[in-house]
Amino acid sequence: MIAERVQKIQPSQTIEITNKVTKLEQEGKPVIRFNIGEPDFGTPEHICQAAKEAMDQGFTRYTAVMGIPELREAICGKLKRENHVEYDPDEVTIGAGAKQCISTALLAVCSPGDEVIIPYPCWVSYTELVKLAEGVPVLVPCKEDFSLDIDAIRAAVTDHTRAVMINTPNNPTGAVYDRESLEELAALAVEKDIYIISDEVYEKFVYNGRVHVSPSSFSEEVKEHTILISGMSKTYAMTGWRIGYTAAPKEIIRAMNVLQSQIVSSIQSLSQKAAIAALTGTQEPLHEMAEEFERRRNYMRERLNQMPGISCINSEGAFYLLPDITGYYGRSYGNVIIENDLQMAEYLLDEAEIAVVPGSAFLAPGHLRFSYSNSMEQIKKGMDQMEKALEKLSDTVGK
Amino acid sequence: MIAERVQKIQPSQTIEITNKVTKLEQEGKPVIRFNIGEPDFGTPEHICQAAKEAMDQGFTRYTAVMGIPELREAICGKLKRENHVEYDPDEVTIGAGAKQCISTALLAVCSPGDEVIIPYPCWVSYTELVKLAEGVPVLVPCKEDFSLDIDAIRAAVTDHTRAVMINTPNNPTGAVYDRESLEELAALAVEKDIYIISDEVYEKFVYNGRVHVSPSSFSEEVKEHTILISGMSKTYAMTGWRIGYTAAPKEIIRAMNVLQSQIVSSIQSLSQKAAIAALTGTQEPLHEMAEEFERRRNYMRERLNQMPGISCINSEGAFYLLPDITGYYGRSYGNVIIENDLQMAEYLLDEAEIAVVPGSAFLAPGHLRFSYSNSMEQIKKGMDQMEKALEKLSDTVGK
Repeated sequence: MIAERVQKIQPSQTIEITNKVTKLEQEGKPVIRFNIGEPDFGTPEHICQAAKEAMDQGFTRYTAVMGIPELREAICGKLKRENHVEYDPDEVTIGAGAKQCISTALLAVCSPGDEVIIPYPCWVSYTELVKLAEGVPVLVPCKEDFSLDIDAIRAAVTDHTRAVMINTPNNPTGAVYDRESLEELAALAVEKDIYIISDEVYEKFVYNGRVHVSPSSFSEEVKEHTILISGMSKTYAMTGWRIGYTAAPKEIIRAMNVLQSQIVSSIQSLSQKAAIAALTGTQEPLHEMAEEFERRRNYMRERLNQMPGISCINSEGAFYLLPDITGYYGRSYGNVIIENDLQMAEYLLDEAEIAVVPGSAFLAPGHLRFSYSNSMEQIKKGMDQMEKALEKLSDTVGK
Repeated sequence: MIAERVQKIQPSQTIEITNKVTKLEQEGKPVIRFNIGEPDFGTPEHICQAAKEAMDQGFTRYTAVMGIPELREAICGKLKRENHVEYDPDEVTIGAGAKQCISTALLAVCSPGDEVIIPYPCWVSYTELVKLAEGVPVLVPCKEDFSLDIDAIRAAVTDHTRAVMINTPNNPTGAVYDRESLEELAALAVEKDIYIISDEVYEKFVYNGRVHVSPSSFSEEVKEHTILISGMSKTYAMTGWRIGYTAAPKEIIRAMNVLQSQIVSSIQSLSQKAAIAALTGTQEPLHEMAEEFERRRNYMRERLNQMPGISCINSEGAFYLLPDITGYYGRSYGNVIIENDLQMAEYLLDEAEIAVVPGSAFLAPGHLRFSYSNSMEQIKKGMDQMEKALEKLSDTVGK
């Protein structure tokens, strides 16, 4: 008696490994989690304080569907200051996290059968959210270095294409798309009159001096073809607060507000006040967090690349590395033969007591996603344990 | 470039009157709001305290999609204690408010073209949420006293019927469905193998010694055909916290969790801790609020019924009255002629400075919805002003 649409939707493929991790932990086995998709930092104190004050002032009622004006103004201020693009508060709406913003944006622009181009590897929810909006996900591979392949995207555009959905800095690859490729994508979007859905939730985590670029900053014309989505979760260690936002042309925002008014009414009131404090208060905790992530990234990447048969492309953003582990295919230890990334993830969970996500979950078979959202101490220990576990696999490999 | 589905969805019809109210207030005109759909009480202190403690403990990260186990256990405890029905925590999932639970439940059970029977007058989101789930809302009138018309519902059942969606105590009528009619509905649901989607968010607000009845408490068989939805918003004056919940057969909950995992991930973490405090802590603030609502209801109903041409059916639940105002049709004052409930609502806003919602918004033309979620002082003042405004309309009417 369950609706057809549920059969078509994959539950998050990371759940299987998470269940196993939880089970191992319940059995008392200490698992080092490199599978985490959220900062391991606490929400900065001044942000919590703003929520407490809002509570004391009785700010616990429904708010406007699109979010309170002060929050939308704070978002516009941030977009102007940091992303170099001017939006009016009427061109902004909030959601219960960026994921919900993506879901509502897709419902607003996709009619049944409309195609949405998704460069991959990609976050696995993208394809499912397109399907939930009755659209058709069109998967286009990135280049080997995980950068955008504009020619491949152009070739995939049809009369039914409504949007290209990108994520920079990228989950799971850690790629940061450069200005040039984004400009080419923007020109294509304008030429073909399609939207860029630009998921920028990892925007503050760029390393090696790289700079995050928002496509909507290019020109008024590009802005009119862009749906910019970001949020508080990753930037301010606020995953539990559930505040994301969308900046887009007015008619898109209006449509999203109609949908949102019927689906969820308003968004958590205290979280909105907390979000204002996050956007307008000190950015020091954010900078410290980003610096710490860069230190960990450098260390983890170096350790991974030192391991024979492991090759890790230079990821310059988010908090993920996506090393290629196909060098171990065909190798074995005891009864275990490594033939795919899922088996490698299970092997590392059993033998190295580290949890990672198989690349297949992100359409990147042959890879594993390592999150460095864990302490330097745990990262060191985890890398040591992984090294030993890999050594156990038969047949040594040269680099 | 907006998706077809958005064209099919009505934005909340209460928005027009709310916009006018806001404009009048900005012009300095003191409007008495009887259009409010939330308690005018603050969230009880011990509930806020629980959220603050959770914040201090760093409980600000993602939680499990279906809600933390302690919350689902607290919900099961409440359902057993107060609604006399036993659910397992695996048969419960939470959402960002009851509205989102209804939306997700409909996505979980409705395939394209499936029919959902909705007795009306009804909350206007029902029809739109069914359409968003690609279902067909089938509207069936209630009896004249706003009770369920089981014969009419039975006559509306077809091979495509998936569910009957009810709301008791009812928004906008204030009707509380009696056990007998709910048992008849339950028998019909079992006979035809369809679901009862039972929205019980006003369950704690019943007057005149009436008792709220949950259909799923009737039998194991009925429970298997019921999707029970309730939440914290109305009961604990927690509208801004966005916590609702669904209790239903495991396969429905599983489907809802798959959808929820892709659409919003988890629900606000602090709100979950607050909800536990609400369900397991003192119920004294709730009892006081319900008693105060009953006092106001009795007063407002008496005042309305004393006005010539106004007839107010004995509403015994929620915090709404839905008087018939057709006695004034054809009457005029200055340039204004009253020909429908929208015009009467506008007339009362202009002349009596009170804001109410036209019944048409709830498929109840000829009526106005009065919320008594306002202070006794304001209610007295509003009733005085309304009485005077009605006297100005030409042609006196006998009762």
